[in-house]
Amino acid sequence: MNRLFHVPLSPFCRKVRLSLAEKKIEVELVEEKYWEQDPEFMRRNPAGKVPVLKMKGRMLAESAPICELIEELHPDPPLFPRKPEDRYEVRRLVSWFDDKFHNEVTSKLLYERVNKKITKQGYPDSKNVKEGAKAIKYHLDYMSWLLDQRRWLAGNVMTLADFAAAAHLSSLDYISDVDWDRSENVRDWYAKIKSRPAFRSLLADQVSGFPPPAHYADLDF
Amino acid sequence: MNRLFHVPLSPFCRKVRLSLAEKKIEVELVEEKYWEQDPEFMRRNPAGKVPVLKMKGRMLAESAPICELIEELHPDPPLFPRKPEDRYEVRRLVSWFDDKFHNEVTSKLLYERVNKKITKQGYPDSKNVKEGAKAIKYHLDYMSWLLDQRRWLAGNVMTLADFAAAAHLSSLDYISDVDWDRSENVRDWYAKIKSRPAFRSLLADQVSGFPPPAHYADLDF
Repeated sequence: MNRLFHVPLSPFCRKVRLSLAEKKIEVELVEEKYWEQDPEFMRRNPAGKVPVLKMKGRMLAESAPICELIEELHPDPPLFPRKPEDRYEVRRLVSWFDDKFHNEVTSKLLYERVNKKITKQGYPDSKNVKEGAKAIKYHLDYMSWLLDQRRWLAGNVMTLADFAAAAHLSSLDYISDVDWDRSENVRDWYAKIKSRPAFRSLLADQVSGFPPPAHYADLDF
Repeated sequence: MNRLFHVPLSPFCRKVRLSLAEKKIEVELVEEKYWEQDPEFMRRNPAGKVPVLKMKGRMLAESAPICELIEELHPDPPLFPRKPEDRYEVRRLVSWFDDKFHNEVTSKLLYERVNKKITKQGYPDSKNVKEGAKAIKYHLDYMSWLLDQRRWLAGNVMTLADFAAAAHLSSLDYISDVDWDRSENVRDWYAKIKSRPAFRSLLADQVSGFPPPAHYADLDF
C-alpha cells in the first residue's frame, strides 16, 4: 500500500493528495509531526519535510518531483498537457504558487496563524499577517486576469497548476483567509475544483484546536 | 536570437546557461539589474526575478520550468535520463540545491557577501555568514555520500542535477567559499564539470568590485 506522510493543511501535501486522488491511486495518509524531527522520520527524509510518499518501497520527497513522477507513471487522466510550451506554463504556475505565493501569502498567514501555534513557536507576528493579507489580493487579481483568458489557470484544460493553486487557497480558506467576493471568476474556478471527487478528502480535514468555518466544506460557498 | 536576462553569479541563471550551452543553443546574455525593478523588465517578468529567457518571441521565467522546456524542445544531448524513477531523482536533487542548499548556504554566503553590496542593502550579517559556512559542510558531505555510490549526483550519467549543484558551487567558489579539500570525490566531480565547454562562459564571468580568486577559472584547482 502507498503511504503519504503529511500534515493536513500543508499545501505541498495537498497538491500531492489531489494528484493521487485525481488518478485514483490509493494511499494511506499518515499524519507526521515533522517539526518534532522524530529520528525514524528523519531517516525516511533527511530534509525533514513533508510530504514524503512511500510508493513501491521507495521513499519519495519534494512535492513537485513527486507529482511529475506520478504523472509519468500514471498518465491518465493527465495533469499536464502535451505541448512542451503548454507544459512549461503548467510548471511556471506550479512554481509561482509553491514559491512566490507561498513566500508572500501562505507563510505569512497560515504559518503565522496555525503552524506557529501547533509547533509551539509563539504568537502570530501581526506585521507578517498584515503583509500576507495585502499580498493575497494581488495574487487573486493575477488569477482573475489569467482566468479572463483561459478556462483553467494554465490553459483550457485542468492541470497540476490548478491543483497547486487550489492546495494553497484551500488551506487558507480553512482559516477564512480568502475573500471569495473579490473575483467572480476565481470563485467559479474554485467551485469547479472543490466539487471534484479528488477534493473530498481535503474538505474532511480537521485540525485539532482549529475548527474549520462552515463554508470550508460547503460546495455552495 | 535567444536572449537571456541574467546576473552573472545567480545560480539559477547559471543552471539555465549551462543547459543552453550543453545543448549548443546560442543565446545572447543581457545583464539585468533586477533589483532596480526597471518597468521594462517588470513587464517582461512580473515576478521581477532573473533568469528570464526570450526564446521564439516568448518571455520565459522560472529556471526549473525553463530547463524542462529546453529539454523537451532540444532533447539532445539529454540532461534527464529515460526512466521515470531516475528522472524523479534528478528533479529531487535540482529541488534540493535550488531550495534547501539555496536557503541554507547560497543565500547566507553569496547574498550576504555580494548581493547585499551590489544592491546597496548594507553589510553582511555575520550570523548568517557563520550559519552558511557551517551548512555547506553538511551539503558537501551529502554530495560526497552520493558520489560514493554513483558516478554523477543523480546516477551514472550527467544530468541537470549536476548542473544545478555546480551552478551553486561555482558561484560560491567565485568568492572562495568552497573548501575543495573536504572531499576528494566532490573535487573530482567538480573538475569534470568545470572542464566541459559548457562551463567556459561561467569561468569568464567578472563582477565589478569582486575580482575572482586565481583558482576560480583554473581547471587544475
